[in-house]
Amino acid sequence: MSDVLQLAEHWRERVEKTLERWLPDSDTQPRQLHAAMRYATLGGGKRIRPLLVYATGRALGLDETCLDAPAAAVEIIHAYSLIHDDLPAMDDDDLRRGRPSCHKAFDEATAILAGDAMQALAFHILANDTAPNISPATRLAMIDTLAIASGSRGMAGGQAIDLEAVGRELSLAELENMHIHKTGALIRASVRIAALSAEQTDDAARERLNHYAACIGLAFQIRDDILDIEGDTEVIGKTQGADLARNKPTFPGLLGMDAAKTHAHSLHEEALRALDTFADDRTDALRWIADFIVNRIH
Amino acid sequence: MSDVLQLAEHWRERVEKTLERWLPDSDTQPRQLHAAMRYATLGGGKRIRPLLVYATGRALGLDETCLDAPAAAVEIIHAYSLIHDDLPAMDDDDLRRGRPSCHKAFDEATAILAGDAMQALAFHILANDTAPNISPATRLAMIDTLAIASGSRGMAGGQAIDLEAVGRELSLAELENMHIHKTGALIRASVRIAALSAEQTDDAARERLNHYAACIGLAFQIRDDILDIEGDTEVIGKTQGADLARNKPTFPGLLGMDAAKTHAHSLHEEALRALDTFADDRTDALRWIADFIVNRIH
Repeated sequence: MSDVLQLAEHWRERVEKTLERWLPDSDTQPRQLHAAMRYATLGGGKRIRPLLVYATGRALGLDETCLDAPAAAVEIIHAYSLIHDDLPAMDDDDLRRGRPSCHKAFDEATAILAGDAMQALAFHILANDTAPNISPATRLAMIDTLAIASGSRGMAGGQAIDLEAVGRELSLAELENMHIHKTGALIRASVRIAALSAEQTDDAARERLNHYAACIGLAFQIRDDILDIEGDTEVIGKTQGADLARNKPTFPGLLGMDAAKTHAHSLHEEALRALDTFADDRTDALRWIADFIVNRIH
Repeated sequence: MSDVLQLAEHWRERVEKTLERWLPDSDTQPRQLHAAMRYATLGGGKRIRPLLVYATGRALGLDETCLDAPAAAVEIIHAYSLIHDDLPAMDDDDLRRGRPSCHKAFDEATAILAGDAMQALAFHILANDTAPNISPATRLAMIDTLAIASGSRGMAGGQAIDLEAVGRELSLAELENMHIHKTGALIRASVRIAALSAEQTDDAARERLNHYAACIGLAFQIRDDILDIEGDTEVIGKTQGADLARNKPTFPGLLGMDAAKTHAHSLHEEALRALDTFADDRTDALRWIADFIVNRIH
């Protein structure tokens, strides 16, 4: 397991470097906008989505150089969504990754524009990547996967469902549907985009990876809901109890805390089972991510 | 000239149909988000950017079917930028295209998310287009052109420069730099993306088209500033005098009204000269757009 931890650290450094390279310098005009983009993207976060890109690539025997651009692109989409989600008109959160959220560190207009520009940057990165052995057609499929996952039937749609749900009673199916969009879409896209890079991968393997991603995506959100109640603001880096205070529907609220934990663990088991049929031991990192997601304290 | 008017009307109908086809139905969940996306995109606007796509394609002898996706993509980016620009934290404008702006017709959170989802949709449209004779590599170049034009060194950057400039004295060079980004980038991209579809176009022709686009982009903004002072709220469809009230730097404010008009007209002349070397009469629509831009009353 310590090898996998080292690998995760190596991948985190790798995506940090890629992000650093693609984000315009904060000396480039408009300076405040570029400073906000860098502030919201660099030096923080668990980097779950980039880790998923690299870990999926490892499972499929891909060279890491093919994965740098996809890893950076999914993380930038994620980081932009956090900026917009934290805005006063949305979740109104002052704290993110243990620091003032972007609109507090800068201002609302800058935060909106930084998010907008970051979305464009993610597509720029994918369209410009010069990694060898990826055909332009595959590259287009990656871009489309990211666009769908980010859009009104993916992440942005999930956030809209979330906002509509505040103060309403949701069924378990409705709550799951919200998270399948809100966080699940981009987590699934991270795995899917990496699998696209391995053009020879057969459909059955893709399907198993998709199922793994669907399970950990939902488990991730349940864990998030648990941490909102049991976590420590210092450790989770965002305001503990914020969902509860906003009367947001959560898994522990709907199922009770014990059943929510059981649900997360059975999704974790299911995710691991989806990897069983991969012949070699290259799924170690994907397994580690699944473990991390349900056991994390931040 | 009446032929060109008919052509413009035909293109406007064509882009409306394409947008209608790509925008999710307002019965699709999340309904409010999709209703907001449709509200902000359909049934209004001058459609200058799509017209530029079609008119450039006409100048280069392209089939209209190659141009539908690019025309819709640039218009959706433009429409999303208007939603975000109108937000209270940005320009705080209640009126757009003669109707309540998106955040007034819906709410701020929905407006932010609708804009976000529309940006993703624009890239989805380009990545999915199945028009024949466009290679995947060309398609990638179109996506990249749109991403750069929308991002921090294009449209979003221009809006950031604009916000920083409120209440400050700008030089003519600074004011032009702001608009080269804010409106110019997407206008230039509209022409450039259409020219990419004509893979055989030589560099000199591309350069002339780029110059045409740069001139009309700036002329467009000068005309906008003039209409903010001389226009009629009913006709321009947004609040007359809004820039003046916000103490925004404008061309008439900096140069005086007469000099601003002269500047717009000399840019118009320069744009037309850039088209002179095209041998045939297929530039009629590009010429008409240049005329329209400096003479329009809305």
